[in-house]
Amino acid sequence: MEGSVVVPPGKVTIAEKFALFDEYWSPKIIGEINDSYVEAVKVKGEFVWHRHELEDEMFLVVRGSLRMQFRDREIQLGEGEFIIVPRGIEHRPVADEEAHILLFEPKTTLNTGNVRNERTREQLERL
Amino acid sequence: MEGSVVVPPGKVTIAEKFALFDEYWSPKIIGEINDSYVEAVKVKGEFVWHRHELEDEMFLVVRGSLRMQFRDREIQLGEGEFIIVPRGIEHRPVADEEAHILLFEPKTTLNTGNVRNERTREQLERL
Repeated sequence: MEGSVVVPPGKVTIAEKFALFDEYWSPKIIGEINDSYVEAVKVKGEFVWHRHELEDEMFLVVRGSLRMQFRDREIQLGEGEFIIVPRGIEHRPVADEEAHILLFEPKTTLNTGNVRNERTREQLERL
Repeated sequence: MEGSVVVPPGKVTIAEKFALFDEYWSPKIIGEINDSYVEAVKVKGEFVWHRHELEDEMFLVVRGSLRMQFRDREIQLGEGEFIIVPRGIEHRPVADEEAHILLFEPKTTLNTGNVRNERTREQLERL
């Protein structure tokens, strides 16, 4: 890489990104790494049951708590906990109170997976 | 995926993983997502200057602080902050005190990149 133009990377302060928006269930891109995005999403209430055929998806709780529902069980997550939902597995995130989640997923991931409805975000905003 | 065996995913409590080891600069695999690993690493002191030709690498500070050095600058990171080091860019992480870092990087990534020395870990332990 000698001789190429170096673009010095900056840091991201996660809390500052979450302070920039209020909308629920609308992930914002806050980082790009290899073929994946790092996304910030505020959640409250129930999302839609869905699955991603090709993509594993990671949910890291940075504030509040999250209930990740599967068809046969539910996993409760608190701050500093994460879950990786493997491709092909139906899931539904639910938050009784507002929670702040960091998502890691391939750029190809549609937030509602195999479902399209009013919660679907075809294009994610970058913060 | 109907008919396939469903392996229900479990959650990971990050602090519990960090409590399982003491060694510095030796990343432990705590998650697997698509072609990448999520790794926990304790750091203290200076690492080695290196670059990864093919892999972007993300450092998320979960405890303490980290100084990410580049050849022309240094970026200070505190808890709840992350930096994505693009492929090809020389960097050296430095921590004045013990810090706990979550790493996201492709499974192909060698921790010392283009360098091999006593800090190189060819095989990462899974926790």
